[in-house]
Amino acid sequence: MSPTGKLVGVGVGPGDPELITLKAVRALERADVLVHFAKAGRVGNARTIAARHLRPGICELPLTFPVTTELPKDEPPYCDAIRAFFDAAASQIASHLAEGQVVAVICEGDPLFYGSYMHLHARLASRFRTEVIAGVTGMSGCWSAVGTPIAQGDDVFTVLPGTLPQEELERRLADADAMVVMKLGRNLPKVRRALERAGRLTRAVYVERGTMADEKAIPLVDKLDDCAPYFAVVLVPGWEDRP
Amino acid sequence: MSPTGKLVGVGVGPGDPELITLKAVRALERADVLVHFAKAGRVGNARTIAARHLRPGICELPLTFPVTTELPKDEPPYCDAIRAFFDAAASQIASHLAEGQVVAVICEGDPLFYGSYMHLHARLASRFRTEVIAGVTGMSGCWSAVGTPIAQGDDVFTVLPGTLPQEELERRLADADAMVVMKLGRNLPKVRRALERAGRLTRAVYVERGTMADEKAIPLVDKLDDCAPYFAVVLVPGWEDRP
Repeated sequence: MSPTGKLVGVGVGPGDPELITLKAVRALERADVLVHFAKAGRVGNARTIAARHLRPGICELPLTFPVTTELPKDEPPYCDAIRAFFDAAASQIASHLAEGQVVAVICEGDPLFYGSYMHLHARLASRFRTEVIAGVTGMSGCWSAVGTPIAQGDDVFTVLPGTLPQEELERRLADADAMVVMKLGRNLPKVRRALERAGRLTRAVYVERGTMADEKAIPLVDKLDDCAPYFAVVLVPGWEDRP
Repeated sequence: MSPTGKLVGVGVGPGDPELITLKAVRALERADVLVHFAKAGRVGNARTIAARHLRPGICELPLTFPVTTELPKDEPPYCDAIRAFFDAAASQIASHLAEGQVVAVICEGDPLFYGSYMHLHARLASRFRTEVIAGVTGMSGCWSAVGTPIAQGDDVFTVLPGTLPQEELERRLADADAMVVMKLGRNLPKVRRALERAGRLTRAVYVERGTMADEKAIPLVDKLDDCAPYFAVVLVPGWEDRP
């Protein structure tokens, strides 16, 4: 194990640049190399949030996801492309770590909660020192921004991806007290039907770009179109028997 | 609505004083009144975390939970005691808000996620301006501290209170990909049996005082006793088919 090199997964929070932790700021100020994920031709949100805390002239290693739009997610061509991408990224990072550098990988939200960082962590943690700095999740940002108490007491809380089949969504939506549905995008009509059939539509709140300057939030029943970005969420608060 | 008074729910994170956000720090520096919850005779963790960010001489309003140890949780005497406690607290805070003061209520973790703040929010938000500052949750702190990627891709993630009956725990533990069991304390033996019967025991990690100086974390199968504080958690990571 390299005695000085260290991989640091840095959660930068849900979007509002003030919702970054003191620990994340200090890690950014100390890093030798900054790694950030982005889609082709775009600067990621995490890089925008981190910008004001970086040392001038810091070495940057942007990782651009391979274009997989046309590939079905459960099939070998998609998985192979993603695996090759993370393997190559881990190998690039490993060469910096082996030289004794501190490499910070910035992530929106929390690094180990549905974050891309964990693919690098899994490939490098056995060979190099690692540290993970927890961040405020996107969903905490959303329910705080709209002032919606989400779960209390003995509530069962569930996070569901909108990609699940409608029947499974429906079953799970009826079986928890509080829930968040992520990955909306074109799944929104299906999620709406599942919420309705599970009897949970009237309490559902739709949130888009939570905590960011252009945040939108409305009761889902009042949203008349089916347009939703992939990272929009639906919140269904529990806590029906409040004391 | 009072034009200047404002109630601010401030998440101060999971325990490590560095895991507080810039936004929370600024809110503490600006507050006129600081509200914190505690058990009789003890300073709460949130107050300890916030200490270094307070203005000297800030007005403090400590709220001491009523002693309800002997009362069954689902019965009227318990509910009445808790309701009276929050009603009295809300009324005290309302008098500061009506004078135009900014009242910060500090909360471990995230204020609207199983936090006591929401009982005040529910009582005051219709009459006064409010702001909720999301925080890093205790569970994010725990999985980050132990470097355990918790959920990825289309994983279903569930938070379960250890207070649930064993059969229900077992059913729910078998029905999600990733999970956190909270409120361990004397529920630990039951949670352990439920994990074993659900086939999830071997992946379970026990974490006590996550991110704090005296943090303890071990695989649950290696924990030979049944002693656990109430706020200890068990993490069961998903993400079994990692690319």
